[in-house]
Amino acid sequence: MTDTAVEVKRETGRGGRRGRRGRQGADKPAGVEQLSWQQPRNPYRPVEVVSADELESIHEASLQILQEVGMDFLHEEAKQILKGAGADVAPDGDRVRFDRGLVEAALGNAPRSFTLHARNPARNLVIGEEWCAFCSASSAPNSADRDRGRRPGNIEDYRDFLKLGQSLNIIHLFGGYPVEPLDIHASIRHLDCYSDFITMTDKVFHAYSLGRERNRDALEMTRIGRGITDEQLDREPSLFTIINSSSPLRLDTPMLQGIIEMARRNQVVVLTPFTLAGAMAPVTVAGAVAQQNAEALAGLVFTQLVNEGAPFVYGGFTSNVDMKSGAPAFGTPEYSRAALVGGQLARRYGLPYRSSNANASNVVDAQAAYESEMSLWGAVLGHANLVKHAAGWMEGGLCASFEKVVLDAELLQMMAEFLKPIEVSEETLGLDAIAEVGPGSHFFGAAHTMERYETAFYAPILSDWRNYETWQEAGAETATLRASRLYKKLLAEYEPPPLDPGIREELAAFVARRKKEGGAAAA
Amino acid sequence: MTDTAVEVKRETGRGGRRGRRGRQGADKPAGVEQLSWQQPRNPYRPVEVVSADELESIHEASLQILQEVGMDFLHEEAKQILKGAGADVAPDGDRVRFDRGLVEAALGNAPRSFTLHARNPARNLVIGEEWCAFCSASSAPNSADRDRGRRPGNIEDYRDFLKLGQSLNIIHLFGGYPVEPLDIHASIRHLDCYSDFITMTDKVFHAYSLGRERNRDALEMTRIGRGITDEQLDREPSLFTIINSSSPLRLDTPMLQGIIEMARRNQVVVLTPFTLAGAMAPVTVAGAVAQQNAEALAGLVFTQLVNEGAPFVYGGFTSNVDMKSGAPAFGTPEYSRAALVGGQLARRYGLPYRSSNANASNVVDAQAAYESEMSLWGAVLGHANLVKHAAGWMEGGLCASFEKVVLDAELLQMMAEFLKPIEVSEETLGLDAIAEVGPGSHFFGAAHTMERYETAFYAPILSDWRNYETWQEAGAETATLRASRLYKKLLAEYEPPPLDPGIREELAAFVARRKKEGGAAAA
Repeated sequence: MTDTAVEVKRETGRGGRRGRRGRQGADKPAGVEQLSWQQPRNPYRPVEVVSADELESIHEASLQILQEVGMDFLHEEAKQILKGAGADVAPDGDRVRFDRGLVEAALGNAPRSFTLHARNPARNLVIGEEWCAFCSASSAPNSADRDRGRRPGNIEDYRDFLKLGQSLNIIHLFGGYPVEPLDIHASIRHLDCYSDFITMTDKVFHAYSLGRERNRDALEMTRIGRGITDEQLDREPSLFTIINSSSPLRLDTPMLQGIIEMARRNQVVVLTPFTLAGAMAPVTVAGAVAQQNAEALAGLVFTQLVNEGAPFVYGGFTSNVDMKSGAPAFGTPEYSRAALVGGQLARRYGLPYRSSNANASNVVDAQAAYESEMSLWGAVLGHANLVKHAAGWMEGGLCASFEKVVLDAELLQMMAEFLKPIEVSEETLGLDAIAEVGPGSHFFGAAHTMERYETAFYAPILSDWRNYETWQEAGAETATLRASRLYKKLLAEYEPPPLDPGIREELAAFVARRKKEGGAAAA
Repeated sequence: MTDTAVEVKRETGRGGRRGRRGRQGADKPAGVEQLSWQQPRNPYRPVEVVSADELESIHEASLQILQEVGMDFLHEEAKQILKGAGADVAPDGDRVRFDRGLVEAALGNAPRSFTLHARNPARNLVIGEEWCAFCSASSAPNSADRDRGRRPGNIEDYRDFLKLGQSLNIIHLFGGYPVEPLDIHASIRHLDCYSDFITMTDKVFHAYSLGRERNRDALEMTRIGRGITDEQLDREPSLFTIINSSSPLRLDTPMLQGIIEMARRNQVVVLTPFTLAGAMAPVTVAGAVAQQNAEALAGLVFTQLVNEGAPFVYGGFTSNVDMKSGAPAFGTPEYSRAALVGGQLARRYGLPYRSSNANASNVVDAQAAYESEMSLWGAVLGHANLVKHAAGWMEGGLCASFEKVVLDAELLQMMAEFLKPIEVSEETLGLDAIAEVGPGSHFFGAAHTMERYETAFYAPILSDWRNYETWQEAGAETATLRASRLYKKLLAEYEPPPLDPGIREELAAFVARRKKEGGAAAA
């Protein structure tokens, strides 16, 4: 290293890029440096992997599926709503067939984009258009970290994931329970968990559709958390629910109840078929996507019948199984391409798009990283507006990992930086600097460099760029080991966001009353 | 898993997807299943990160740099050639200034694409347009694997990397010595190494520009290896050289000699400025790319003056330093965006484009994987035609890793699969299958599935998709551990490609004669 390089060098310790904190992390108390709160905007043209004609073929195939095969709706009220709108409802069963007019009538009613309101308005998000939001991973039955291994989900781990999700600015909202706290009885789990979301974080969270009562509790708790009236809640999307069709071609009772409860109150329905090609969908990407699209369109029709104009997000989750074992795979080339077609379809319908950061690895290793990258690039290039499972997801969703949260935070921050346009101007082209330095010299000491070096480049949270010898002397830690130290540092630094005492009291009273009433029945 | 899933399940063992070998790996003797030899073609529109106007600003800035600052050419003959063409050559030094006319005259002369001939015609490559070729990593001073650790480069490791590069179909050519065999004296190293390339592999290789003699030896050995005349070699690009400018704005003697020797014989010059923003280039991406572009254009002008129409590849290698330590970083968000702008510039000039698969990790871990993915996506989305360092590169080029070769082979295969268009047809849309299966069932036993399942999806080389319990019982191996077993398996399975005995003899005689003459002098 030259003397001038030494001149610019700063004492940083491992990852402690405190020099940048003033700029980047003004809303963080101390310690782990990270990007400031910001919602990425994607300025690039989306990548298209099928032609316009091929896209129309997929659309037409979906309409044909809905018209000829139909879809099972396992809910009486839902069937009545659909029948009332002219759908062909089988008199002796659950099968509902849609003619194309019914589908076309639903298109264009849901908003292209909307604001999703958090209890802290600074955490509000735009869902749609060129905006992107990253969700914490959700719904894993197990959790794991390096020190303590893998264990069934529990409330302590649940709360630790909430702390990480609150502390990391690149996690914009919570897409469900990061891990299922199995030690809390199912009848009251949602009350404790939503209460934790509201008191321990100030970001948007998600309501599971596991029976009407739970949806209604979530809606009321969201209203209380925001300190608003019912009327304001009905005007302002503030809560979202993931509706998974039971592929192939079925919507179950709690899911349909969820759509009814949420859409009626103008809250967000994210319809996501889980179309695993070769298992719950055809073994071809085109066929799996056609089926995904049919299921998503059926959900759109129903949602718009419940409440025309209610916010709706088109979800894509098409992947493939390992045909040798039947095991699901994620972050595969098929997955990435399906994510891109999903984006094309969502844009065709003028709907916000949801994708995911998925992988099938059993350990936070190179596979976890590359499968996640394949998923994330599919999401970002496909202009996903909502990226679920963005931080912490492992094992195809069976485990939430503390180290993976940190690894993913790095991947997400890098994506956010990738999406920042290159500034091309007289100043950034730097012709004066190039003339000043001239051939055969270096830019370390140039004025152009000195004015910008502190903020010129992305500062990583996890990557270690020291040379081999220095890295080895310092303990030769892998990225996973460093992530292990970092998540503990983040937990230690966690500070609960402010909450109005009146709101806290009202929330506690609601939870106490509902617990006294026995919570919610099994879905 | 359902009964039907079991029905489709096949006994595979670890990664042994032998059922697919007949289809995919017909040119492999046995064992590790992989994609068959194929050159990926990129059917998608390239991603553009600057507007057309911004691209012109960068182009104009480059012209201004060449006109006002100029570039140092440290070679008398080169300066004479440039002076003869009307460049402004400083009478008392090495500085050469180019007016825009000189640059514009050079544009359009080099071919948009050309065939790069291997000694085995089945390994010929198209360089340019929508075609992509992946090079083995090159020029590392150290090598490493899990069992034996990191050590200075040696001939045994060199040969092992050649075996891997020959065996893995996704590695299309060799971009230099994968590791420097430091135990072979520099005067004869090129003779032994090129001899190994020709006898141990049948793919295209690269000639270092380290003095005229070495270029000429490489050219003659290439001619012998192909068994062709001088005239045929002069017609058919069969060898390539990387020319690195010494950024900022300098071309050194051996590099200029390399251009002269290679271009005169119609062989391929890949001009790659190593413009590390903040060190050898301005601290801004726009400035670093403008300088990269100036240097590449100067190289293009010179190459076309030496031999109008000689094949030329536009190389981009703009990354950034860690401004806290001066350490170079790779696979950063800045790197990915610079790779995409590089592609835009190369396309503007109608030139094939070279990018790289770079990372700065010291160990084959999650960081190595995600930085490589960031680099690779930049290359692929930017329509790179030649991806250097595609397999095995670590530590910003200071180490070649055996495990990383396997990891990268997986990443490259996944990219190749990602680039295969989704087939959208009546058959693949699978409406009959969807009708046959219907709501609430599964596709495992459907005829549509059974006809396709063996070849429907990408079969990974490294990824482990078993569930956690099975994976743990089998030893809980990370991807890096599995890569360690796999590279040894590949080495054990290596078979040298056939070589005509007459060619082998002629080659040996040439090498013996040149060694007797003392090899080549220091560059």
